Amino acid sequence: MQHLKESIRQFCRERDWEQFHSPKNLAMGLSVEAAELLEIFQWLSEEQSRNLSPEQRQRVSEEVGDVLIFLVNLCDKLGLDPQACAMEKLQASAAKYPAELVKGSARKYTAY
Amino acid sequence: MQHLKESIRQFCRERDWEQFHSPKNLAMGLSVEAAELLEIFQWLSEEQSRNLSPEQRQRVSEEVGDVLIFLVNLCDKLGLDPQACAMEKLQASAAKYPAELVKGSARKYTAY
Amino acid sequence: MQHLKESIRQFCRERDWEQFHSPKNLAMGLSVEAAELLEIFQWLSEEQSRNLSPEQRQRVSEEVGDVLIFLVNLCDKLGLDPQACAMEKLQASAAKYPAELVKGSARKYTAY
Amino acid sequence: MQHLKESIRQFCRERDWEQFHSPKNLAMGLSVEAAELLEIFQWLSEEQSRNLSPEQRQRVSEEVGDVLIFLVNLCDKLGLDPQACAMEKLQASAAKYPAELVKGSARKYTAY
Repeated sequence: MQHLKESIRQFCRERDWEQFHSPKNLAMGLSVEAAELLEIFQWLSEEQSRNLSPEQRQRVSEEVGDVLIFLVNLCDKLGLDPQACAMEKLQASAAKYPAELVKGSARKYTAY
Repeated sequence: MQHLKESIRQFCRERDWEQFHSPKNLAMGLSVEAAELLEIFQWLSEEQSRNLSPEQRQRVSEEVGDVLIFLVNLCDKLGLDPQACAMEKLQASAAKYPAELVKGSARKYTAY
Repeated sequence: MQHLKESIRQFCRERDWEQFHSPKNLAMGLSVEAAELLEIFQWLSEEQSRNLSPEQRQRVSEEVGDVLIFLVNLCDKLGLDPQACAMEKLQASAAKYPAELVKGSARKYTAY
Repeated sequence: MQHLKESIRQFCRERDWEQFHSPKNLAMGLSVEAAELLEIFQWLSEEQSRNLSPEQRQRVSEEVGDVLIFLVNLCDKLGLDPQACAMEKLQASAAKYPAELVKGSARKYTAY
């Protein structure tokens, strides 16, 4: 992850693109990329989404890459560690949704 | 990242939530979480987004966590390595947007 | 639609909120509201989404309202007529996707 | 609006696309189109977003059209009147955000 962060920094510095990368703009970019990922699944059934063609899987891979690039860049600007954020959130969710109370029910949560 | 992936697996298994986690649904969840992150920046100026209050930064941290959890979970279902996807995409973008041609111009790209 | 546009104008003017309503910010708001609508369907099967409970339908109704409010406000700022935009787009799509070529296939289009 | 609804129905019927148009899928499509609209504004400053070029305005017009098409189609499937939803939501927001309390402050609201 450190390597990815450094590579993104260098990529942006070489293109003088940091000027466009306010956290606000990066959050917009993240949403746009997440929607491009979503678009691939838009007309697929859930079953089909579990059995992607090699071409679809390649497109997913590219959009996943874009999402993570924006996420890492945004976190870099704000001094956040994305993996630490995820582990903290997972622990908070574990406390909020005790396994014995929500087991097998999607109605009990809207996120993790 | 391996540790995060294992923790998410365990979290979902304990709650019997894997049944809801088709790639299609996880891509939806990712978009929803990205929008919750975006919402924090919605009425801020770009300048304000560079100077978040501790409370705003905490909210960003939580939504960043959610985004990464969904991304890692989606990749796990599809057998993708998110960091490898990002490094590949960054290299493809470096070839597509040569530094000397796009330097300082946001018009030349729509994504990385 | 004219009545809705006038009502939104008055609502914003009374609160002195026009200052926050740049087209950029309104486009962000529209995406955020569309995601809140999406969230309602996130864990539902397609079949379940066709049979909403009264409570779910009420939530959908509220988010639909928010989406249209942002869309009308954005169009008002840019001097666009949303219904004319939709009719034009529908005609362009009809020319792009001839019925006899795409009939019954979702693979032929990514949007309308 | 009635005319637009009828035109969308005919467009979908002629292509036999109704089978893909579960409310869940249409809500996904709406989010995807909202993000395509957002993408146009992604790297613009708020000031620039108020002064679009004719080409940018044309792109906005097309994406606005897509958003409204999906919204009207979704509402048609659920038996909702989008304009009535918006007027109701606006009235609820007027009650929730009294002008004298929130005047000039974006901090007081997250949506309308």
